[in-house]
Amino acid sequence: MQNIIKGEPLRGSRKTFVEGTLFPIRVGMREIVLSTGNCPVTNPDTLTVYDTSGQFGDEQETIDLTNGVNPIREEWIESRKDTEKLKELSSEYGRARLADDSLSHLRFSHVNRHPRRAKDKPVTQMWYARQGIITPEMEYVAIRENQRLEEKMNGQFKPVSPEMVREEVAAGRGIIPANINHPECEPMIIGRKFLVKINANIGNSPVTSDIASEVSKSIHAIRWGADTVMDLSTGANIHETREWILRNSPVPIGSVPLYQALEKVGGKAEDLTWEIYRDTLIEQAEQGVDYFTIHAGLLREHIPHTVNRMTGIVSRGGSIMANWCSVHKKENFLYTHFDDICDILAAYDVGVSLGDGLRPGSQFDANDKAQFGELVALGELTKKAWDKHVQVMIEGPGHVPMHMIAENMEMELKHCFDAPFYTLGPLVTDIAPGYDHITSAIGGAMIAQMGASMLCYVTPKEHLGLPNRDDVKTGVVTFKIAAHAADIAKGHPGAILRDHAMSKARYEFRWRDQFHLALDPDTAYDFHDATLPDEDDKQA
Amino acid sequence: MQNIIKGEPLRGSRKTFVEGTLFPIRVGMREIVLSTGNCPVTNPDTLTVYDTSGQFGDEQETIDLTNGVNPIREEWIESRKDTEKLKELSSEYGRARLADDSLSHLRFSHVNRHPRRAKDKPVTQMWYARQGIITPEMEYVAIRENQRLEEKMNGQFKPVSPEMVREEVAAGRGIIPANINHPECEPMIIGRKFLVKINANIGNSPVTSDIASEVSKSIHAIRWGADTVMDLSTGANIHETREWILRNSPVPIGSVPLYQALEKVGGKAEDLTWEIYRDTLIEQAEQGVDYFTIHAGLLREHIPHTVNRMTGIVSRGGSIMANWCSVHKKENFLYTHFDDICDILAAYDVGVSLGDGLRPGSQFDANDKAQFGELVALGELTKKAWDKHVQVMIEGPGHVPMHMIAENMEMELKHCFDAPFYTLGPLVTDIAPGYDHITSAIGGAMIAQMGASMLCYVTPKEHLGLPNRDDVKTGVVTFKIAAHAADIAKGHPGAILRDHAMSKARYEFRWRDQFHLALDPDTAYDFHDATLPDEDDKQA
Repeated sequence: MQNIIKGEPLRGSRKTFVEGTLFPIRVGMREIVLSTGNCPVTNPDTLTVYDTSGQFGDEQETIDLTNGVNPIREEWIESRKDTEKLKELSSEYGRARLADDSLSHLRFSHVNRHPRRAKDKPVTQMWYARQGIITPEMEYVAIRENQRLEEKMNGQFKPVSPEMVREEVAAGRGIIPANINHPECEPMIIGRKFLVKINANIGNSPVTSDIASEVSKSIHAIRWGADTVMDLSTGANIHETREWILRNSPVPIGSVPLYQALEKVGGKAEDLTWEIYRDTLIEQAEQGVDYFTIHAGLLREHIPHTVNRMTGIVSRGGSIMANWCSVHKKENFLYTHFDDICDILAAYDVGVSLGDGLRPGSQFDANDKAQFGELVALGELTKKAWDKHVQVMIEGPGHVPMHMIAENMEMELKHCFDAPFYTLGPLVTDIAPGYDHITSAIGGAMIAQMGASMLCYVTPKEHLGLPNRDDVKTGVVTFKIAAHAADIAKGHPGAILRDHAMSKARYEFRWRDQFHLALDPDTAYDFHDATLPDEDDKQA
Repeated sequence: MQNIIKGEPLRGSRKTFVEGTLFPIRVGMREIVLSTGNCPVTNPDTLTVYDTSGQFGDEQETIDLTNGVNPIREEWIESRKDTEKLKELSSEYGRARLADDSLSHLRFSHVNRHPRRAKDKPVTQMWYARQGIITPEMEYVAIRENQRLEEKMNGQFKPVSPEMVREEVAAGRGIIPANINHPECEPMIIGRKFLVKINANIGNSPVTSDIASEVSKSIHAIRWGADTVMDLSTGANIHETREWILRNSPVPIGSVPLYQALEKVGGKAEDLTWEIYRDTLIEQAEQGVDYFTIHAGLLREHIPHTVNRMTGIVSRGGSIMANWCSVHKKENFLYTHFDDICDILAAYDVGVSLGDGLRPGSQFDANDKAQFGELVALGELTKKAWDKHVQVMIEGPGHVPMHMIAENMEMELKHCFDAPFYTLGPLVTDIAPGYDHITSAIGGAMIAQMGASMLCYVTPKEHLGLPNRDDVKTGVVTFKIAAHAADIAKGHPGAILRDHAMSKARYEFRWRDQFHLALDPDTAYDFHDATLPDEDDKQA
């Protein structure tokens, strides 16, 4: 692995910072530098846009991957004085991995042996919000969402305030995934009143396993705009892989702890126990994972409804838990232990992304009794989590024909009390393997317009193989399109400004400005040059 | 140019034919051969799908491009006895090109020196339909739309009947573009009650000009599913290029005669005259172009409404005519001569695609007074064309945010009396050059669900350069996704069967069946093999 990485903004852009007024914080953004004073905002020479790249997008920075990126939240967390540094890792598995010398060559060098944990009360952003406390995270989020538009759209833009962020988090309509053990995380918010966010999945597998390539994919994903990254590793050394990813991630990292728990029992679902799962939650919480997908809403009573499905249970987590329930003839232990789970999450501020283990895997199975039965259970769990001050989002499908998308959003809002909806697409047809980034971007744009808060990307390799670095980029850019189109359609006052700047550049044949305003300047340059490589053609 | 081409179906498919009952016709379709009896239709081993590839998709055929493909409609047209074969070409330009020996090396070898023209009444499908006559074209279309589903979905599928096709064409809700001088054309229908169709644009330019590569793009477009192809050539030898394309095209060919007329006056819009335009219409009608885009609805009164636009007039045809009107201070001659135009179209059965010269070129300009003012004029022209029994469709935008798409469809239906709507996307954001096939597929799927009958594809090179062969394929497959997703959402009873077959194959790990059911089997194979190249992994 190349360990020293020079920060590099997207072509035509530079890093810029906006300082806080309540707290001594600096919020990173990207400034697109335009060639002339024709940007349709007051400040004529630049357009400031949301930026997820952290230090990797800052030409002033050089990142040593063996050290990780700046722990910007360290002081904020410390100053709250409601956490303690533990003498050692709390999870047995974590301690065992640390003690295993054969792993030293894989291990992140500065691994944190003294993670933080809450002293005696929840330390979640929701808890603070409900006490009326505005945290630095909340001010960071407010500034970040505003993208400096309040400076540029004199009076026409009502900026997001830290207080409004607090209200949304307190009400459960917005979540700020920010584990106290992931101080490198630049806070962001997922909620219907904010910009639509996108998640990129990465992770090794038994077929391809290599820490360097997963870290590289993660950095590539945030370069192109992923708001969060989920590490879905199922191969070797996933504990160590996760540490490298977390320490080098300025965006929240999500995971599915069940995947690792299953590895620990040799892949046999029936051998899973609450104790092994619990130890995995703590292990990952102390590494700093910001949100966990937990398939706690799949109940025994739902399973018979999957019998007449075309594609059964396609969620990996869902099929593991359905299998476990069937073998043991017991209720899903994630459901029965949900209060215990929430106590753990509240002690580290790990958000819960309630998994849709019964999501449809085909157009045929969309919106069926199994799917919506589970959704009702997710609503029940939402209330339970909120009782423990745990931040919640709800996972959604999947594969849904266009005319059946709206019902998904309506059911989610109704049964899950406005908790943010986090959907995978949905894919609006099943006949285009190789192009499922597109089938899902269509459904994703539509459901985000209707109110979904975050879209999980789908890459061209979906249903066919594992995404490589290029696929990650294609997935991210495609879903930035879906999210941005939805922001425009929802009437976000700042979203369409970039479109206007692009259109004006186009009308005036300012080619370079068009490339720099593009979601992917490199591809815009390449495609243009393929037809008209002359330098003159970029001036015209 | 490689002139001899061996017919080749998509991987895993074979050509099949369904015979007519009213007429001695054979309708080509594609049969996807499945490995087991698990296709969710009565006939268990194959799934029959719509096919646009003509002889090029038939392994029994070998096509000599210098001869062209089979003129399957020759006898049908002849037997109606309402046309005559002319002694010579009617257009001056056509005769001049034919007489120019320096062009012999470019000329299609069997160029038709004796085109057909109506004897004494319209020879349009609309005219026949209104007389209560069912033509072979109508039966062909009905059989083609049904994709053999009536055989397979016993009683659950209400097949399209030739009589229903006749009714839709008579009412102007459906059009069958089928010039009497393009006997090679396999009839198809564009209308809201039928499968959503897609168009692929090709054409040379002053920058890249080469007959072989345009013919190759056209054949590539229909291989992947383009229902019609528009030749938008603006470079050298466009008369000869068009002849090659037409003679080798089993799908309707559209054009924008204004582009060629402009070439004839050296690119100076103000030098355009009705006489030059008229000669161009006749020239192209006698070659066999099936529909013309005509920007007759852009009126002088609309032009002032474009002044405050972000991107002015982006339609090439629109800006040519606006320029002409401004210089001459006269009304658009395409509008003032529209009755004369219709008389020509009716004599060859060329459909008119009423161009939206004032379509928005940016999100900012969407749904403005200029755009909708022109749309009302298009409605007026629709009535005029129908009075002359000319088949009509209406072109639509363009660049429109998602929340403003529905208004476009509603306005079109209202002002244009249910004439088929043929839209370019719309692109739902302007910030993704390099990915505009995706920004437009999102809008395209949505507007097709709402009722648009045909979508014009957009390739990844839109706004950046000229599409090559790969871009043509990407654009076609992407728009097949949008069209198919809309067919599902509109409740077309047969559309979702293919999704079900795919889902079942997926559930049963029948990899090859998945690849063969895919819109693009080649990419599905390639992507799968990139991760799991072993032969065993395709059996699992």
